[in-house]
Amino acid sequence: MTPTTTIDAMDQAAREQAEFGVLYAGIQQFYAHQMQLFDSFRAESWAATFTEEAIFDVPTLPEPVRGRDALAVCVRHNEELAQRTGERLRHWLGMLDVQPRPDGTVHVRAYALVYMTPRDGIPKVHRVCVMQDTLVRRRGHWRTAHRVVSRDDLA
Amino acid sequence: MTPTTTIDAMDQAAREQAEFGVLYAGIQQFYAHQMQLFDSFRAESWAATFTEEAIFDVPTLPEPVRGRDALAVCVRHNEELAQRTGERLRHWLGMLDVQPRPDGTVHVRAYALVYMTPRDGIPKVHRVCVMQDTLVRRRGHWRTAHRVVSRDDLA
Amino acid sequence: MTPTTTIDAMDQAAREQAEFGVLYAGIQQFYAHQMQLFDSFRAESWAATFTEEAIFDVPTLPEPVRGRDALAVCVRHNEELAQRTGERLRHWLGMLDVQPRPDGTVHVRAYALVYMTPRDGIPKVHRVCVMQDTLVRRRGHWRTAHRVVSRDDLA
Repeated sequence: MTPTTTIDAMDQAAREQAEFGVLYAGIQQFYAHQMQLFDSFRAESWAATFTEEAIFDVPTLPEPVRGRDALAVCVRHNEELAQRTGERLRHWLGMLDVQPRPDGTVHVRAYALVYMTPRDGIPKVHRVCVMQDTLVRRRGHWRTAHRVVSRDDLA
Repeated sequence: MTPTTTIDAMDQAAREQAEFGVLYAGIQQFYAHQMQLFDSFRAESWAATFTEEAIFDVPTLPEPVRGRDALAVCVRHNEELAQRTGERLRHWLGMLDVQPRPDGTVHVRAYALVYMTPRDGIPKVHRVCVMQDTLVRRRGHWRTAHRVVSRDDLA
Repeated sequence: MTPTTTIDAMDQAAREQAEFGVLYAGIQQFYAHQMQLFDSFRAESWAATFTEEAIFDVPTLPEPVRGRDALAVCVRHNEELAQRTGERLRHWLGMLDVQPRPDGTVHVRAYALVYMTPRDGIPKVHRVCVMQDTLVRRRGHWRTAHRVVSRDDLA
């Protein structure tokens, strides 16, 4: 390896790290916003963070949900449930393992927690899950194209 | 749109994403440090992460606290309480939704958890909260100018 | 200070912030991957995220573990335990206070949580800890050279 190619390789590595840093922060922000919309029952805004044909496969639903309209229905169902029970849910992600793929999509494997607080009651950890997402970029914004969630208690 | 303006717009978008990435990481570091100072009872150092005239509005206090001296008093109170009860608190933030504003301030809406561990005892989730901060930049450092916290059990 | 040095100082500060942003994201990704390997019992892959001579000092072990072979043994022990008990552990880090040092190493002080979920059971917060790591860069990858963990219930 000549000195020149060494320097080029260093530049290349530094550039890739810099790009990854921008990507990682952008994806953290995307999820923060997405989860807060979900917990605030903003059904249409939350559904819009998925692609039109997104697949949402979670163990609490009998079969995978497809598309934004069906996703929004889930949120409205959650809202009715919360009004009836007085229980408030908070969805947290952490330990985001972000893997860009050659086709421009990004795979994310992350841990997901659900905290539940009854009105005037004691909060608790409700669910411990693993989330796997495929993200795609649409008009400069990340969108979830495919999500699979597994629950640790059912695994 | 001419090809040139398209390229300019792409450059502009890439530059904004890069700036946001730097901002996002800097704010995560700011909060990590701020929360660790708080839980370590470093009263003056923690108070110094707020602006001189900061307002700190949390449901456990009867009225909003104003300014660094009053903030430091809160930490010393926490320290006395911890020594008496033997309970150790850890404040976590997550799901940081970071929104830069045109005036150069940054609005952050985040989830906040408090874990509590009795000496030789079993840890538990003590509080589930939402934190809303206005951050300002002073001499190259982020400072909290205004904080409002709501507790899920009281909401 | 002349206007030129002021501009240079601003450029310098902006460059340092940008470098810190890249560093912070890279370290978050490093830990996300490291913790997921640990919880998935990928013993050798996890051990390879430490330096050859790494020291791993945690309160659940009678003495500090040294080196990759001994680290891998810990993971295999965890796997056997999990198979026997049916309990699944998830290790989370948060509040990462990342401090680069002049010698090129990075010191990280972070909060660490362990969630535990029994098969078909109710999840709980198992441990609340503080983790202190020294990270070094080897062939373009972060590696843990030294880790000390303290448990809040034993502190």
